[in-house]
Amino acid sequence: MRQIRSEYEFNEFYEVLKRRGEFDVEILATVTKILQGVKERGDAEVRELTRLFDGITLDSFRLSQDTVDEYAARVDDAFLEALKMAHRRINVYHHKQVESSWNFSDSHGVLGQVIRPLRRVGLYVPGGKAAYPSTVLMNAIAAQVAGVREIALCVPTPHGEINPHVMAAIKLTGITEVYRIGGAQAIAAMAFGTESIKGVDKIVGPGNIYVALAKKLVFGTVDIDMIAGPSEILIVADQSANPVFIAADLLSQAEHDEMASSVLITTSEALAQSVTEELQRQLAALTRKEIASASLSAFGAIVVVDSTERAFDYVNRIAPEHLEIMTEEPEHTLPLIQNAGAIFLGQWSAEVIGDYAAGPNHTLPTGGSARFFSPLGVYDFIKRSSLINLSRNGFNALAAETQLLAQTEGLQGHANAVRVRREDISPEGNG
Amino acid sequence: MRQIRSEYEFNEFYEVLKRRGEFDVEILATVTKILQGVKERGDAEVRELTRLFDGITLDSFRLSQDTVDEYAARVDDAFLEALKMAHRRINVYHHKQVESSWNFSDSHGVLGQVIRPLRRVGLYVPGGKAAYPSTVLMNAIAAQVAGVREIALCVPTPHGEINPHVMAAIKLTGITEVYRIGGAQAIAAMAFGTESIKGVDKIVGPGNIYVALAKKLVFGTVDIDMIAGPSEILIVADQSANPVFIAADLLSQAEHDEMASSVLITTSEALAQSVTEELQRQLAALTRKEIASASLSAFGAIVVVDSTERAFDYVNRIAPEHLEIMTEEPEHTLPLIQNAGAIFLGQWSAEVIGDYAAGPNHTLPTGGSARFFSPLGVYDFIKRSSLINLSRNGFNALAAETQLLAQTEGLQGHANAVRVRREDISPEGNG
Repeated sequence: MRQIRSEYEFNEFYEVLKRRGEFDVEILATVTKILQGVKERGDAEVRELTRLFDGITLDSFRLSQDTVDEYAARVDDAFLEALKMAHRRINVYHHKQVESSWNFSDSHGVLGQVIRPLRRVGLYVPGGKAAYPSTVLMNAIAAQVAGVREIALCVPTPHGEINPHVMAAIKLTGITEVYRIGGAQAIAAMAFGTESIKGVDKIVGPGNIYVALAKKLVFGTVDIDMIAGPSEILIVADQSANPVFIAADLLSQAEHDEMASSVLITTSEALAQSVTEELQRQLAALTRKEIASASLSAFGAIVVVDSTERAFDYVNRIAPEHLEIMTEEPEHTLPLIQNAGAIFLGQWSAEVIGDYAAGPNHTLPTGGSARFFSPLGVYDFIKRSSLINLSRNGFNALAAETQLLAQTEGLQGHANAVRVRREDISPEGNG
Repeated sequence: MRQIRSEYEFNEFYEVLKRRGEFDVEILATVTKILQGVKERGDAEVRELTRLFDGITLDSFRLSQDTVDEYAARVDDAFLEALKMAHRRINVYHHKQVESSWNFSDSHGVLGQVIRPLRRVGLYVPGGKAAYPSTVLMNAIAAQVAGVREIALCVPTPHGEINPHVMAAIKLTGITEVYRIGGAQAIAAMAFGTESIKGVDKIVGPGNIYVALAKKLVFGTVDIDMIAGPSEILIVADQSANPVFIAADLLSQAEHDEMASSVLITTSEALAQSVTEELQRQLAALTRKEIASASLSAFGAIVVVDSTERAFDYVNRIAPEHLEIMTEEPEHTLPLIQNAGAIFLGQWSAEVIGDYAAGPNHTLPTGGSARFFSPLGVYDFIKRSSLINLSRNGFNALAAETQLLAQTEGLQGHANAVRVRREDISPEGNG
């Protein structure tokens, strides 16, 4: 665990964090080839790549409703109840994000903004070791609350293995169009469409580096949610904070993957010491201690600063995915926070609750992109159209200025579209 | 002008339109090299490329306030008044898009969404022949209404030429940080930062293919508005519509560039005929008739359909940037419109008014991306953070289910972050 006591050391660490997300050129070449192959050869290519990467030969990519139901039935009741509770709370929170179309009139006519849900969305769910039912809920509910009617879901089943917990989550959301494919080939199939999978308008969901790169490359052909990178937590704490909670929360990020980053920023040297000790103690008992340990030594840091202002300067530079505030009056720090995916105030707002059951989405901007990206939300599944409905008088009131501006920009055809209307002499303008 | 009377012909045309936006691999290589060069060599590379592409050698990239003022003073009063009128209306419309932070309490605590403006935005304005003061207004006002404090503006000055109309628009918006650089090198400078230009959080604004590709490639390092393609208009009209207005509006798109697309869809064979004739008549008088003519023959079409339903099926497949509805009761078609950047209802809502003075933004999704992208708006210049503030009781109410879900996903460290809090026995939880 890196110990940081100066601006110089922080800047060094910041550069390390920044370089964390850079792509490998060889992987880029592989992914480009996969995309091209699926675009040209469709199902045949997806079938071949699934045999190669997942070790299974599929006649059909679609998981039948019977299969989904059969596996979903294998989970125990306690898990299903927990999942339902999470579903309920995520649903309530996301309903607060619903926006409506609006319009207003002035003396010239009506102006407005029409909001429509996306028609068809592709949801990617990782399979294998990192198969997360919570991800199914977070993505599906945001899309469904927005009003998306068609959701295609891709989840790979490496070596044929189907995850009952993921199937239970899929069943709970009511999604029925499920394909057992994964990786860049699944992203390509959803983006370009194949004989058996209809193309979508937007692709969302997390994945490994191949999936992330594939999404980046198909952006424009379809929309994507964001380029998800390794997970991050940043905790700002003062002397009042509980080192046991802090260590546990830092480790809960660190166990995700070796590229994850866990940082404590504090004004208290005493807290820095006790958290360092507590980390060692808790780390020893962790199942995934090797991953957590590697992550902490590469991208972990305990930063002691001389002022709250400096602490939040660092926060806003890092722009963390998860930000926990464990100070005596955590609400008071809100005005200082510019950049963070999700803000957890106080010691009972454990980040892990946000991962599952608090209500807000757990898909959050990483790698400093909270400077400009937002959490996944209902707003990701709608699009807007401007609405312009001018009366004849309204047109006339704006005509001369518009014609002049068009003329100034050298667009005579634009000016002409004004002129022909100004010269129109019909009583109704239909003449 | 392509004449379309069957589904088969429409499908053929649709494929032509789809392929319109594809990138050239050689340009991609050039742009990649420019980005890499600026990232590594900063100002020196920008200076060299500006000498090469714009034919000027610059000591400083910054345009001084005196220079901006001096050129801005050269425009005539009528132009300035027209610009001010446009500014006023754009400002009013964009204020309707302002969103506020919100939160709500339940028995477990407070949940919410914090909205903050982006801190620093880069605005690209094309120079040379296609220098558009209206673009300055559309981009700057959306950012300013959102609350963006720092706006850096890049506008190239090929062969040293400074456009007074663009300077007047810049002055009107109050933007003072202006750089006289352009192309992919300007995008790179804003994305990565150089010695003299501080990096931004998001880059917006239109440009040629080099600019568009550069924006696509820096997406992720910064946010971008959208990948702007060639302009489009689609007009749906019935026998009541005015062929003179329709022809003028089709030509106003066609004159933009040879890749622009202008389409009429109508249920009236008579209207199709009269618009075809009117186009020939108006085209002959157009300054930019060669561009318009090339655009019409490559990407223009007059489509006669047998029903309104089919017309809007085509509309939604094309997902046009601009959609004009010139039917007897245009409002009645709104429920049929799923995909369009901006909707212009009735014959007095000329698209050209929307380009300048109606109020809504003229930066709109092109190339079918209205399926998933929105017009540029205030929402492009804010980001959200989730807010979670649980009470101790709230935590306890969600703890068991969260712990179980984490355990099920194999994340013991996550489960542990719940467990240490559940086992905490201090009265205040600080023990």
